[in-house]
Amino acid sequence: MRAVVLLSGGMDSATTLAEARHRGFEAHALTVRYGQRHAVEIERAEELARSLGAASHRVVGVELDVLGGSALTDEAVDVPKERSDGEIAEGIPVTYVPARNTVMLSLALGWAEVLEARDLFLGVNAIDYSGYPDCRPEYLEAFERLAGLATRAGVEGSAFRIHAPLLELTKGQIVRRAVELGVDLGRTVSCYDPDASGRPCGRCDACLLRARGFAEAGLADPALA
Amino acid sequence: MRAVVLLSGGMDSATTLAEARHRGFEAHALTVRYGQRHAVEIERAEELARSLGAASHRVVGVELDVLGGSALTDEAVDVPKERSDGEIAEGIPVTYVPARNTVMLSLALGWAEVLEARDLFLGVNAIDYSGYPDCRPEYLEAFERLAGLATRAGVEGSAFRIHAPLLELTKGQIVRRAVELGVDLGRTVSCYDPDASGRPCGRCDACLLRARGFAEAGLADPALA
Repeated sequence: MRAVVLLSGGMDSATTLAEARHRGFEAHALTVRYGQRHAVEIERAEELARSLGAASHRVVGVELDVLGGSALTDEAVDVPKERSDGEIAEGIPVTYVPARNTVMLSLALGWAEVLEARDLFLGVNAIDYSGYPDCRPEYLEAFERLAGLATRAGVEGSAFRIHAPLLELTKGQIVRRAVELGVDLGRTVSCYDPDASGRPCGRCDACLLRARGFAEAGLADPALA
Repeated sequence: MRAVVLLSGGMDSATTLAEARHRGFEAHALTVRYGQRHAVEIERAEELARSLGAASHRVVGVELDVLGGSALTDEAVDVPKERSDGEIAEGIPVTYVPARNTVMLSLALGWAEVLEARDLFLGVNAIDYSGYPDCRPEYLEAFERLAGLATRAGVEGSAFRIHAPLLELTKGQIVRRAVELGVDLGRTVSCYDPDASGRPCGRCDACLLRARGFAEAGLADPALA
């Protein structure tokens, strides 16, 4: 059975790809290059697609930076670092990319139509979602419904399913599951602002969440070795 | 009131932009460049955005051709021409671009979030939709619902509205409405396979539909002059 798996090069999407393979899917990995500052993610995604046994891998560019509005795509907005209390800010952060998951799922849906796949995998997480509205279960259900109405396959009676195997896991549980499934976490990059070699800044929200996950799992992060 | 209007350079989306302006919206035009063969559409979209009074215009590239599957983006699939009976084929045509409207609406939604707009305009048409599943009213309603769940604004209680002012019009009615609203139809390009100067092939489904519209309206197509 074929599935399209969205793969960013981060820990969550790599674990999601491993999970799709573990569940027996022929996994086709899709990386969306959306003008983010951390292009090293793309290289890591290619490497992870190979090492995790994806049947194929495509990189689709989308010029989201043309629309602005996020610290991840807009050079005019700084990625926030080091709050004085070391905590992650509440609410929707400036690193939120407008409609990012909707754009990525739309592209995954388009490729699924071409591949005649009915299953999409997405590494979103509701517990640590950090204020992103498009990481909630009700959002994913609404996208499944849309997919059924948007497509040739849907018109012909097929249903699409969005799998979000990390949805209810804590970051610590994700780290443990990744290790169980043999994901080389040292080659995943979660940081919003890594250097050119992929070394994380250690101070952005994504780095703080990741560090919290490894601490909860009682493991050292191999990316920091 | 701000709105994002999807603008392709064709007759339908130009008329939709004119309609948004007529209804009093500050219209921000968005053209999605998705690896289609007819790049002349982009130039025409820029010209139409100016002539129809758009407040701004952005062109966002999306590499849909990487995913294949359509005669409009995949060089391996020919645009169909000249059926022996001169009729348009039934069912979903090979010019269908997988998930195209979902990708375009997702980008419009992202820009709407940045602009703090809650209204999106799309030039789809249910009567002449030619077998495209993502041109049906129930699809548009599902996208409105998704938009409410996908966004920061939705979380904060705003509703998004998708306007499809051409949805229930015939091609002939669209031609008449375009003329009423002062759209320069001679500068719109509907053809799936125009030459570099924008001259239509006259034989693809889009050309046949357009010709039918002008005939129904009792007008000559200025693009053929």
